[in-house]
Amino acid sequence: MGGTNTDIGLVSENGNIIQRRTIPTNAYTELEPYVRDMMREVEDMVKEQTTIDGIAVQLDGIGIGAPNGNYYTGCVDNAPNLTIKGVLDFGKEIHRYRDLPVVLSNDANAAAYGEYIYGGAQGLKHFIMFTLGTGVGSGIVIDGKLVHGSTGGAGELGHNILIPHGRKCSCGREGCLETYTSARGIVQTYLELRRENPDQERMLKEVPDAEISSKLIGEAAHQGDPVALRTWEIVGDQLGLAMANSVTFSAPEAIFLMGGPTLVGEPLLRPLRAAFEKYLLNIYQGSCQIRMSELKSNEVAILGAAALIKMPRE
Amino acid sequence: MGGTNTDIGLVSENGNIIQRRTIPTNAYTELEPYVRDMMREVEDMVKEQTTIDGIAVQLDGIGIGAPNGNYYTGCVDNAPNLTIKGVLDFGKEIHRYRDLPVVLSNDANAAAYGEYIYGGAQGLKHFIMFTLGTGVGSGIVIDGKLVHGSTGGAGELGHNILIPHGRKCSCGREGCLETYTSARGIVQTYLELRRENPDQERMLKEVPDAEISSKLIGEAAHQGDPVALRTWEIVGDQLGLAMANSVTFSAPEAIFLMGGPTLVGEPLLRPLRAAFEKYLLNIYQGSCQIRMSELKSNEVAILGAAALIKMPRE
Repeated sequence: MGGTNTDIGLVSENGNIIQRRTIPTNAYTELEPYVRDMMREVEDMVKEQTTIDGIAVQLDGIGIGAPNGNYYTGCVDNAPNLTIKGVLDFGKEIHRYRDLPVVLSNDANAAAYGEYIYGGAQGLKHFIMFTLGTGVGSGIVIDGKLVHGSTGGAGELGHNILIPHGRKCSCGREGCLETYTSARGIVQTYLELRRENPDQERMLKEVPDAEISSKLIGEAAHQGDPVALRTWEIVGDQLGLAMANSVTFSAPEAIFLMGGPTLVGEPLLRPLRAAFEKYLLNIYQGSCQIRMSELKSNEVAILGAAALIKMPRE
Repeated sequence: MGGTNTDIGLVSENGNIIQRRTIPTNAYTELEPYVRDMMREVEDMVKEQTTIDGIAVQLDGIGIGAPNGNYYTGCVDNAPNLTIKGVLDFGKEIHRYRDLPVVLSNDANAAAYGEYIYGGAQGLKHFIMFTLGTGVGSGIVIDGKLVHGSTGGAGELGHNILIPHGRKCSCGREGCLETYTSARGIVQTYLELRRENPDQERMLKEVPDAEISSKLIGEAAHQGDPVALRTWEIVGDQLGLAMANSVTFSAPEAIFLMGGPTLVGEPLLRPLRAAFEKYLLNIYQGSCQIRMSELKSNEVAILGAAALIKMPRE
């Protein structure tokens, strides 16, 4: 469930997306019609796909990854970027249509669990996922269990304060990791650098400030633009520091990375890995790898949500 | 097990220290004679205390809190501040004398678990312990389980980099929390302030730099010394930031605080609580308390070690 669209998928036991649909989240202001239409798509998928590999389709449950999704309550709590306002009790609404387990978590936690069940984190016990996009999200797995914390809202490393009294964040505080390594933060760094070094800019010289995107900065870096390359160096250093700090918490075996800005690859990963080594406490050297998510970017949302159904319930 | 002394205690089921002994850690350079003398004290305590509340004493196990103690291997791994060098396999040595469960962890983790079993964290499921002393240690409990991580070395928040490119740390990096809020870090802040404001110093004016201690700075603060008060304000702000950052990881119900420098009380706690509120992400407001350890400072080491025996083993 994103602010603009909701991706809905029918996922097989082994993690194949068999059917998928999309409905426009921002066309709704009430939960009831939204869930009604969502469940209509679900029933439609099940009707179209009566068997998988010759076996009759039987739904095990419905998993939902949503902004401000709370695992404990099964509700979405006042997500600022949704047009459906308030505390949204998905379990209650969905149970009007189907008597199935409904498991809900925030989108980054779901993405981490998707990596664990279907992606590169299979078999690991301790890892952290950082998702870079409009914001920076994270999900943490310790001893094979997703960390929800006492409130259901654990794993918000995008709002770890990286630089005290640093950039103003949308959360009202200053210096959060998100202000530096989200798509918007990366653009801000580029804009700062272009102002300081007007003579060094090459590829994006003619592009006005308002049209600069992390994607363009990525392309410019691959063409050798020094301002773009310097941008990724700075972002890699900042993200590497944040990752090294997170290791002091749970000593994970791996830290995974996903999301649009990470698709740039080496211009980010090279300085990121160097910074991670530099900032990592000696006792952890060699114990933790930085890895890219192995899930396809257009499948993460659905596979993450589906994976939640695999979570052992107490 | 400290660098100078080893405290050994016989602890009853309900957390009373029935007998206690001390041996000088730094008198040993080999594990064998050290464990021999340790076990001699253990046997001596059991001989003196044959019954507790009329019930015959029977040892359930031996818990050890030690610097660089590794829960998974049961070894102390090259602790820089011990005179006994190398990788020390306590389980193997102790089993020469007694066939008992031996559980070992690092000292801060043991302190956290002691708080959980015998102190103020009883009944909580998610909390973090910060121990302030020569260094800054931490122990993390999530879902009622101590976090060991993939290496056994999780929970080193004293080496979370709080201020990028900040003070030089003994670990070789810069800006670690420990360089600001350990006893030594607090003294350094005081010394910096006294140099900048020579006219404002009152109580400790005549005390040379080398004799300033966090204890003296605490006493001066209680007498209204402005430089001392300002020192605790800065330390409280730094520690509050570190604590607020740790909440984004595991969303704990409480953060506990223990150790010599924390005994100063309000001059530290007032700015600490204010900073914690200020730096805490809005979604966590009101969900996490800052609390002082409820274990006596001279009992923490023994009770923490004893608590390790209560840990569910897999």
